[in-house]
Amino acid sequence: MEVYTQELPMRTSRRVELIDITSMVTGVLESSGIRNGILNVFSRHSTSAIFINENESRLLSDIESMLEGAVPVDASYGHNIIDNNADSHLRAVLLGGSQTVPVINGSMDLGTWQSIFFAEFDGPRNRRIRVSVAGKP
Amino acid sequence: MEVYTQELPMRTSRRVELIDITSMVTGVLESSGIRNGILNVFSRHSTSAIFINENESRLLSDIESMLEGAVPVDASYGHNIIDNNADSHLRAVLLGGSQTVPVINGSMDLGTWQSIFFAEFDGPRNRRIRVSVAGKP
Amino acid sequence: MEVYTQELPMRTSRRVELIDITSMVTGVLESSGIRNGILNVFSRHSTSAIFINENESRLLSDIESMLEGAVPVDASYGHNIIDNNADSHLRAVLLGGSQTVPVINGSMDLGTWQSIFFAEFDGPRNRRIRVSVAGKP
Repeated sequence: MEVYTQELPMRTSRRVELIDITSMVTGVLESSGIRNGILNVFSRHSTSAIFINENESRLLSDIESMLEGAVPVDASYGHNIIDNNADSHLRAVLLGGSQTVPVINGSMDLGTWQSIFFAEFDGPRNRRIRVSVAGKP
Repeated sequence: MEVYTQELPMRTSRRVELIDITSMVTGVLESSGIRNGILNVFSRHSTSAIFINENESRLLSDIESMLEGAVPVDASYGHNIIDNNADSHLRAVLLGGSQTVPVINGSMDLGTWQSIFFAEFDGPRNRRIRVSVAGKP
Repeated sequence: MEVYTQELPMRTSRRVELIDITSMVTGVLESSGIRNGILNVFSRHSTSAIFINENESRLLSDIESMLEGAVPVDASYGHNIIDNNADSHLRAVLLGGSQTVPVINGSMDLGTWQSIFFAEFDGPRNRRIRVSVAGKP
């Protein structure tokens, strides 16, 4: 078995932004030469998340609304005394910062309606995502 | 190290249904011949989730109620214009579509009160779950 | 590739307690001798969780408040007839019981503000966390 890893740098453009990174992750998998195993996408930040779902614009707005309902931006958080982004951290805790996906015959085994998203909750910022692949060539 | 993978097809019977798949996953692990490593259970759908918790019927009802509180079925979601299942997608985003479990001496290292569940949020449907095991025979 | 695994026993001291276990996990990684791969931290309990975020005391209080808002302790849960800890299970389902982290050149590839936390939701108790590392020496 082999291990391959690559860091994906990105620039986000809004405070809250849901970005489809499936093709970037596919590029790393192709560079890896690994054909069967597992792939991990990990965000190296505590105010962002990685999730998998359908890339449909109205649904992405619904996801933003759900998060605004569960963790409102303007609530009185203790952490905001330190750094005015507690909502960004709390949303990151709720969604989680990584996803692990099976790799079969050289491709991620995603379903038809599954895309991988980077969820920015405290942008615009420069961000780094680590993609790791473990498996057989 | 070896990699073994198998797809588990299933048929769900209700719109929302929490199904204990621990014994099915154990069957895949036994077929793999892998005795030490990690195991990933991945749902290939964006309106379902995988979670680990206790298999107790009242608790499963509590989980359904929690999800109904956090993501009500009848709210006015934008995605419902496309496909009337935004609540199913949002619940999937909240719970996540996969779980990774350690494998020790041929068994999943689950605690006494831990079972693996497939959470159907848009059934009844035919579903496919991918179980992948990486490790040593 | 190699697999290394170790169980971390711990004693929690409050009903709800968020404990930074990063240095304990780093210790396991150092014992493993693995320098590149992935690491999984798995809680063997259904009333606790593992999450990654910033270790800042006001933020940790904000996380506890968010969970109290999403899953209040005193609501009328069906499971409480069996065992008076439904809120602990529900919070565990929401946050998830494991995290997977990339390992690069002998270290976890965590960002500057990322720590690994064990979240106790039904303490004080004795708990067991399983750390598994798969990769190359």
